[in-house]
Amino acid sequence: MKVGVADTTFARVDMGAEAIDELRRHASIAIERYTVPGVKDLPVASKILLEDRGCDIVIALGMPGGKEKDRICAHEASQGLIRAQLMTNKHIIEVFVHEDEAKDDSELAWLAKNRAREHALNAILLVLHPERLVKQAGTGQRQGFEDAGPARQ
Amino acid sequence: MKVGVADTTFARVDMGAEAIDELRRHASIAIERYTVPGVKDLPVASKILLEDRGCDIVIALGMPGGKEKDRICAHEASQGLIRAQLMTNKHIIEVFVHEDEAKDDSELAWLAKNRAREHALNAILLVLHPERLVKQAGTGQRQGFEDAGPARQ
Amino acid sequence: MKVGVADTTFARVDMGAEAIDELRRHASIAIERYTVPGVKDLPVASKILLEDRGCDIVIALGMPGGKEKDRICAHEASQGLIRAQLMTNKHIIEVFVHEDEAKDDSELAWLAKNRAREHALNAILLVLHPERLVKQAGTGQRQGFEDAGPARQ
Amino acid sequence: MKVGVADTTFARVDMGAEAIDELRRHASIAIERYTVPGVKDLPVASKILLEDRGCDIVIALGMPGGKEKDRICAHEASQGLIRAQLMTNKHIIEVFVHEDEAKDDSELAWLAKNRAREHALNAILLVLHPERLVKQAGTGQRQGFEDAGPARQ
Amino acid sequence: MKVGVADTTFARVDMGAEAIDELRRHASIAIERYTVPGVKDLPVASKILLEDRGCDIVIALGMPGGKEKDRICAHEASQGLIRAQLMTNKHIIEVFVHEDEAKDDSELAWLAKNRAREHALNAILLVLHPERLVKQAGTGQRQGFEDAGPARQ
Repeated sequence: MKVGVADTTFARVDMGAEAIDELRRHASIAIERYTVPGVKDLPVASKILLEDRGCDIVIALGMPGGKEKDRICAHEASQGLIRAQLMTNKHIIEVFVHEDEAKDDSELAWLAKNRAREHALNAILLVLHPERLVKQAGTGQRQGFEDAGPARQ
Repeated sequence: MKVGVADTTFARVDMGAEAIDELRRHASIAIERYTVPGVKDLPVASKILLEDRGCDIVIALGMPGGKEKDRICAHEASQGLIRAQLMTNKHIIEVFVHEDEAKDDSELAWLAKNRAREHALNAILLVLHPERLVKQAGTGQRQGFEDAGPARQ
Repeated sequence: MKVGVADTTFARVDMGAEAIDELRRHASIAIERYTVPGVKDLPVASKILLEDRGCDIVIALGMPGGKEKDRICAHEASQGLIRAQLMTNKHIIEVFVHEDEAKDDSELAWLAKNRAREHALNAILLVLHPERLVKQAGTGQRQGFEDAGPARQ
Repeated sequence: MKVGVADTTFARVDMGAEAIDELRRHASIAIERYTVPGVKDLPVASKILLEDRGCDIVIALGMPGGKEKDRICAHEASQGLIRAQLMTNKHIIEVFVHEDEAKDDSELAWLAKNRAREHALNAILLVLHPERLVKQAGTGQRQGFEDAGPARQ
Repeated sequence: MKVGVADTTFARVDMGAEAIDELRRHASIAIERYTVPGVKDLPVASKILLEDRGCDIVIALGMPGGKEKDRICAHEASQGLIRAQLMTNKHIIEVFVHEDEAKDDSELAWLAKNRAREHALNAILLVLHPERLVKQAGTGQRQGFEDAGPARQ
């Protein structure tokens, strides 16, 4: 199994390093990293990792700013990531942390690291243990902040 | 007939299980389930079910949160699901329940289960009995809440 | 000439039947009908009509609800319909009536029927008499409500 | 050089005729016209002109109404026009005049004619004299209303 | 290495010339320039540079106006640029300066020139020195205005 890690110089936390550290705990995984300027550069970087560099899955990490213009950039990037997946029939796990999700720099760093690590695990499950995700279906999982949990009738 | 069921760990109700239970009442249907983290992972999962795992149709179930950011995620996922259909010439029935459609957890669970089941029936009609849908054309059908019914001049 | 008619069970008026009735006044036209649950299912249904069932053009009829969520559904469907056209190099005439365009059920039914019929004529003109559309260029044509007419300097 | 002119019956000014008149001042240009009902029909019409009718470039002219719903139609059409260009590697010059850009019908007619003519010239420059556009780079050109001109440090 | 530079006559600063000047400091780089009317013409121009004119990467420079309609144009252009990258597996660095990012013409000119030059360097790094971008991952880089810097826990 080879995992691509695409991240940005725009992000204010080294989310790529966190994801890689988490992946490395699983010895059998090869990793290829690709750093681009911003989130809008992630779709093609992810597609190159999947098509030209032999990755089975990509984790695409970014940190959009808190302005309206940044939210639109993130939206454009997300659509590109979905399109790239449909062109390759492989998963790209989007790990975006919006700067305004956190109340200060310290929480932002904590959130970014935590979400990167939890989604690194999701990437492994998707490729190696899909049956474990089926067991979690409909249970209100979240990455970064606390899980929402199931809603009961 | 083989039906793909794509669902998420993010959802707070096990909508996939409801859809599968409804489908199972129709003995001749094979089912393949694929669980992903969130709604943005559903388009490629659905396409893989259609192209690589022999499904004739897919039911894609998800439960976006109630924030603006969640609405945009759902919008991106929906566009991806439509694109996946156009790339395969097969239907993907989108079954999304927005958390803010229900007044509390109990109604949310009821709504999610009901909509999943009603759309499971739609999937069967689309593949096996398309003429029955023609008979319902323009009659204001809804899935989950009560039907709107026809508007008369 | 073969015309595909794609419509929905969600719509509260049988717009497909109106379009078909209008088309039938032109004896040389074959018709294929395809009814789906909602507007987001129309793009792939239209593409199947164009690619797999020999239609020269499709009329895609739908009636989005009046809420913000419905407007987004309609937007997603419209983008899919445009994409389907670009993938086939054939026209799909979108005939959407938004529930909030009319002041009550009676006007809604009148509007839906009228717009369906006027666009059925547009479909015929596009395929059989494109030169007649050129004569109407820039004259402020509308379908359903009254024409806007030309603006003069 | 062959130029496609795609326009609509929805527009309230015959923008296609204006563009054609401007193009005709350049004797060596062949012209093919294609009139459709509304702006959402322009993407496939433009693509047909480029792929099936031998055009080197297309001018796509439309006049969206002033309501929110019209702005969304225009947005959908614009995205389709960009997609059509990417599928053909040829330019489609979008010439849209929004009804609410002008203060009355008279200014609307003036604006539509002027913008159509200025963009007809852009089409010629793009195909025959690209070096002249390079000379205008960054000079704040506008089509219709007055040029904005360059910003100086 | 050959770099495409796509820019517009709409922009009020000659951003293309700035990018080219910066690139020229690196002697081994060939440059191809392509000027179009506005930002919505940039996606196909960039794709032509990548596919037909042998460029390894493109810098696409534009300056959307400050109105809502302009923001939508920029959004459409951005989506097209991402799509063009996915169709070619090559990078297009988007360098957009929104007119309302600056407080006056003087700052606008300064910002446009600065951002064009900083992104010209990013283009070189992406093709020739990708390992240097990895070193900057997660450090809050910005182009034009001051860097945001890293967020610490």
